[in-house]
Amino acid sequence: MKLESLRDLYVEQLQDLYNAEQQLIKALPKMARAASSEELKAAFEDHLGQTRQHAQRIETIFEQMGEKAKGKKCKAMEGLVEEGGEVIKEDMDDGIKDAALIAAAQRVEHYEIAGYGCVRAYATRLGEDDAATLLSQTLQEEKAADESGQTEKRTVKSSRGRTRRAA
Amino acid sequence: MKLESLRDLYVEQLQDLYNAEQQLIKALPKMARAASSEELKAAFEDHLGQTRQHAQRIETIFEQMGEKAKGKKCKAMEGLVEEGGEVIKEDMDDGIKDAALIAAAQRVEHYEIAGYGCVRAYATRLGEDDAATLLSQTLQEEKAADESGQTEKRTVKSSRGRTRRAA
Repeated sequence: MKLESLRDLYVEQLQDLYNAEQQLIKALPKMARAASSEELKAAFEDHLGQTRQHAQRIETIFEQMGEKAKGKKCKAMEGLVEEGGEVIKEDMDDGIKDAALIAAAQRVEHYEIAGYGCVRAYATRLGEDDAATLLSQTLQEEKAADESGQTEKRTVKSSRGRTRRAA
Repeated sequence: MKLESLRDLYVEQLQDLYNAEQQLIKALPKMARAASSEELKAAFEDHLGQTRQHAQRIETIFEQMGEKAKGKKCKAMEGLVEEGGEVIKEDMDDGIKDAALIAAAQRVEHYEIAGYGCVRAYATRLGEDDAATLLSQTLQEEKAADESGQTEKRTVKSSRGRTRRAA
């Protein structure tokens, strides 16, 4: 199908993000299990709840357009989730694994910040104000999740790193 | 090899970003060729020059650590580049293809913003001040590239979208 209008691109990108959120809903519990610090486990679990809500918002947008929500395989999120899976399997000191999990999660957040930034801009141009409001909420939550990753990153323990700095 | 220290993670993530930049150096000329607007073509070409410099900065950092720069296959960038490749091949109206190329490029920028944000934080914690300065420069340029994508997004032509809004 030829994409001829901004609306076609908007629908395609919503489908990409819908699939990305579905992939993330499967990946986040594994990341929570792999985390050592209780704070990080809790952060991944909280974000799972948010991610489900982000997917539901896309469903609402499709409903408002009189369409059923469907996903379009998001290859970038596949790669991101695969990278997160490597971190989970890799042999690492606990504190370092937590840092690596945060790094993987921040890459995912940033994918979504870029994605939602685009669809929100398209929704605004298309005069889809209700959808733009929903997408703005998700965008703000993704940015907040990235910000809390910045904070968690600073608190990750790294005994070797500390020793090295003290030396 | 077990990752035991923040330094191990730092090196691994630099290798990931080095490979990501190499993939991007191959992908950007294809994106420039696929773009219709002269401004967008020029933006991709400019960014290719920057990307080469970002790769060189990582080489400098490895040299300063007395190591040779090597890449570690970045699966997330593979997915992102594959997504960009789909946009290039997909049948689209010119203006819509330009918008889709910008969307793909912004996802790439955001991957790098997350990645460089992490390695810069690690460099700072490890007391690698020269490296932190180089990584900050790259991070600022990636953010600026994302910002210029925001501007370009607003100027993309979409005849159908306009007709629809006027109706």
